[in-house]
Amino acid sequence: MATIFSKIIRGEIPSHLIAEDENFYAFLDISPLHQGHTLVVPKREIDYLFDLENDELAAILPFAKKIARAIEKTIPCLRVGIAVIGLEIPHAHLHLVPLQGNNDLDFSRPKLTFTEEQMSATAAAIRANL
Amino acid sequence: MATIFSKIIRGEIPSHLIAEDENFYAFLDISPLHQGHTLVVPKREIDYLFDLENDELAAILPFAKKIARAIEKTIPCLRVGIAVIGLEIPHAHLHLVPLQGNNDLDFSRPKLTFTEEQMSATAAAIRANL
Repeated sequence: MATIFSKIIRGEIPSHLIAEDENFYAFLDISPLHQGHTLVVPKREIDYLFDLENDELAAILPFAKKIARAIEKTIPCLRVGIAVIGLEIPHAHLHLVPLQGNNDLDFSRPKLTFTEEQMSATAAAIRANL
Repeated sequence: MATIFSKIIRGEIPSHLIAEDENFYAFLDISPLHQGHTLVVPKREIDYLFDLENDELAAILPFAKKIARAIEKTIPCLRVGIAVIGLEIPHAHLHLVPLQGNNDLDFSRPKLTFTEEQMSATAAAIRANL
């Protein structure tokens, strides 16, 4: 059965796209830790990030760097942090989270809620800075 | 001034080495979230991970994958998670943390303390599984 991320990548479930290329799809996390929190997902449906082939692994961070730069230009933050946990959705994904402090990557914190309009505006602002 | 990680890489400060190559040095975090928590540090002294060049960024996850596989074989865990925060030490580093649950990557949790003997034994066990 397709994962929720594969359905998002195919457009069967709407998402706030940030960027995509032949290998990866990046979109706003709908339960963000911070405004601009973005997920980078390999289009190939693999549960565990470290089960990707080396050439796929090698492509992730250069792709994520472009997005991190755009997030930095858009969202006030000290830098963009990275987290890979992956115990809930069986499709590898990398979190890019704008950080203001050391605890901003703490996934036990309550997630934020934004309206569709706010999410659309955030995604458009980040895309404009790509 | 050299960062603490550069001093570790040069051997001026002792560490529990896991692996190294021409670009990266991996060793046990002395304030681990979990037994086997490993830091992967680029030998080039760069503060922010996303300031690395694309060829350097591309090499990190394939290098980390070998270590993650060895950690998985050594430490009981569901998988190995990744975190990059980097607000405290001005030398980019990637955390590899054995995960048992979603909150195991929460850096606000109290860190664990192991004796030198325990750290040496953990490092030797992971190295033996590389």
